[in-house]
Amino acid sequence: MPGLEDSLRRPVRGMRDLTPEYYYALKRVEEALSKLAESFGYRRVETPAVEHFEVLAKKAGRDIVNEIYYFRDKAGRELGLRFDMTVPVARVLSYKLDEPKPVRWFYFTKVWRYDEPQHGRYREFYQFGVELVGSASPRADAEVLVLMAKAIEAVGIGDYVIRINDRRVADKALASLGIKPSEEVYRVLDKRGKVSEEELSSMLMGLGIDREKASELLSLISGAVPYAEAPEVISKYDEELAERHRAVVKALEAFGVLSRMAWDPSIVRGLDYYTGIVFEAFAGQYRLAVGGGGRYDDLIELYSGIKTPALGFAIGVERLMEAAGIEKAERPLDYYIYPVSSEAYGVAVEVAEALRAKGASAVVDLGEWGLREALERAAKTGVRHFVIIGKKELEKGVVKIRDMAKREEVEVELSRIKAGL
Amino acid sequence: MPGLEDSLRRPVRGMRDLTPEYYYALKRVEEALSKLAESFGYRRVETPAVEHFEVLAKKAGRDIVNEIYYFRDKAGRELGLRFDMTVPVARVLSYKLDEPKPVRWFYFTKVWRYDEPQHGRYREFYQFGVELVGSASPRADAEVLVLMAKAIEAVGIGDYVIRINDRRVADKALASLGIKPSEEVYRVLDKRGKVSEEELSSMLMGLGIDREKASELLSLISGAVPYAEAPEVISKYDEELAERHRAVVKALEAFGVLSRMAWDPSIVRGLDYYTGIVFEAFAGQYRLAVGGGGRYDDLIELYSGIKTPALGFAIGVERLMEAAGIEKAERPLDYYIYPVSSEAYGVAVEVAEALRAKGASAVVDLGEWGLREALERAAKTGVRHFVIIGKKELEKGVVKIRDMAKREEVEVELSRIKAGL
Repeated sequence: MPGLEDSLRRPVRGMRDLTPEYYYALKRVEEALSKLAESFGYRRVETPAVEHFEVLAKKAGRDIVNEIYYFRDKAGRELGLRFDMTVPVARVLSYKLDEPKPVRWFYFTKVWRYDEPQHGRYREFYQFGVELVGSASPRADAEVLVLMAKAIEAVGIGDYVIRINDRRVADKALASLGIKPSEEVYRVLDKRGKVSEEELSSMLMGLGIDREKASELLSLISGAVPYAEAPEVISKYDEELAERHRAVVKALEAFGVLSRMAWDPSIVRGLDYYTGIVFEAFAGQYRLAVGGGGRYDDLIELYSGIKTPALGFAIGVERLMEAAGIEKAERPLDYYIYPVSSEAYGVAVEVAEALRAKGASAVVDLGEWGLREALERAAKTGVRHFVIIGKKELEKGVVKIRDMAKREEVEVELSRIKAGL
Repeated sequence: MPGLEDSLRRPVRGMRDLTPEYYYALKRVEEALSKLAESFGYRRVETPAVEHFEVLAKKAGRDIVNEIYYFRDKAGRELGLRFDMTVPVARVLSYKLDEPKPVRWFYFTKVWRYDEPQHGRYREFYQFGVELVGSASPRADAEVLVLMAKAIEAVGIGDYVIRINDRRVADKALASLGIKPSEEVYRVLDKRGKVSEEELSSMLMGLGIDREKASELLSLISGAVPYAEAPEVISKYDEELAERHRAVVKALEAFGVLSRMAWDPSIVRGLDYYTGIVFEAFAGQYRLAVGGGGRYDDLIELYSGIKTPALGFAIGVERLMEAAGIEKAERPLDYYIYPVSSEAYGVAVEVAEALRAKGASAVVDLGEWGLREALERAAKTGVRHFVIIGKKELEKGVVKIRDMAKREEVEVELSRIKAGL
């Protein structure tokens, strides 16, 4: 039989199979990030992969709507695969109106975007993120920034920077140049670093901004400073906002992550719904963009009808793992148990069960290979211990345990193993 | 603003939002089942939710093809959401041809079926299952049966039965009545228990089997016996098959789960691809059908082109949880830390970080509520300890910790908390 044609054997373009060595690397990250979020009082949520298309489209900017996997079910419902978790969380809170505020939720789950696949960018990928819903406090801004910083540190990355801006400050900066703030302008500014300054200029001119203003604007957003100095910069535009950022600076200092934060007026985020602080994280030697977030005080209302301040961030897990150099995690088998005769099978099962009860992983040979072949295969697949139960061993009431790395064998009394020693 | 219309606030029909209390109940089950599978040397895999439709359709029986969520991506690819994990595993093994055999893989993940939603049956649901690929041994059959039994026990269910049959035995039993075994006949027999005997009869007659034969067939498949007695029953049809089941019986006995197994000739499974042992598990007081499986020695070849014996099972996780009576898991917050003044905020952060380092969950108040309101809210949401850091406490170098259940307060020295004591 010929089997599948080659192209169908591979996962759908832009998606990945996680065989165990890749799965366990991901799981290690999942565990580290979950533990972190839970220690801050966040609780994990999960929602369906499938949402009503209308629910997804309500928040997605124009670029993202085009990336939604869209379909109809047999009843004709217009559906789509979720492209992030902020939308489902907003939807859930729109009917769980009595959930005590502030809500602290996190997620670690798959999302889907029909984007051009690139190195480290997939059409199905994992996002880790938090949503802090129901607080307008600057301490809330700081808490979310701290969690993002600690999430990056939790996977072993010491070298990173979180670049921060504030949409209200950006609005005022634009206004100071006589430019009306709009989603279009921000979407152009968000392309900074991805396209040349010349292209940026002409895109801004395409929005009716003259060449001189465009150039002033680009120079205005090019000056990054340590975040500790942000309040001073901001106070040129608005003293109240400067005061707010002073509180965030103070909180970040208390958590010991202030030095990792920069004030960067070029960080604007492409989407319309941000209303306050916005930020993006760049991690590792190559400063990979691993995620971003911000405050969106009007978004929840779109879904629930009730004005609710909120902010959050999302990290692309595969990107974070790339920045951390985490790719595979091996999990060798602890014991391979070989009963030489069929009489020894029952004893092999007892030994296996005793080892499993102690937390070890153990396989009992299925009786299709000779001893030599079983040993060779065990050596190839990285088994730690090979246990032989033959006639001699049965008579003596022992098992022979071979340490595959050290190539040493010891005899251990059966009674000791069964007693869990 | 009105927000979403009501119907859009809820998840898509047949799907569920897992808010934290439901998510953590599921996670407890995930952890218990993963630990079990790993102790048997199985390794977890994950594959994309989205597969080429052609790959899915290759294995799905007629009923299941109709339940696939189907769509095209923007490049015109015909895609679908996976309806089980046996197909993706077979696909992965079709290009990972050098994976050492036998392959022991397990999964705990979402699958999708456009089925009529019922109590405990969802259109998006979780499956836990194992695939043991590359062994034709009766010990392999036993290993998979043992894992299914222990999976049910691992969630706290002591009362269950696994009903076993063998397609080769069923083929011979049909032949002994002069009935040609076919997928159509098995699909009818699989409806036993779901429709009346009268309906079964007329469905069989619709396949050209006369009334008398249909009645004989139904009586033939109605006699369940303890699985220990199966070899005797089977030897009436085929001594070699009886010998094989003797080996399975012996292995199940060694694992101590033989008494939970029944030989039930009515268990045939609806799908064409089973080639040997087939089984279904019924758990809890109401004997809920929680999953099934069997041997499919020809399936892998459909994908890889290489004949490879294999078997596995899948359990519906939501059904298993229903049988076990597991619904919610509360995770109260350990510490809510309230700095009375803004000077105390830095100390509150230090206390929180020390508690988190010890593995506790801790929230620092965001500064939007008075002490009384914060305390009331903490009481309502089930916080374990409320920590007050006021002016007096700062001066004395202590914090006040209120045990919310016992309504008792103690003062603890700051230095002790910071030292992690």
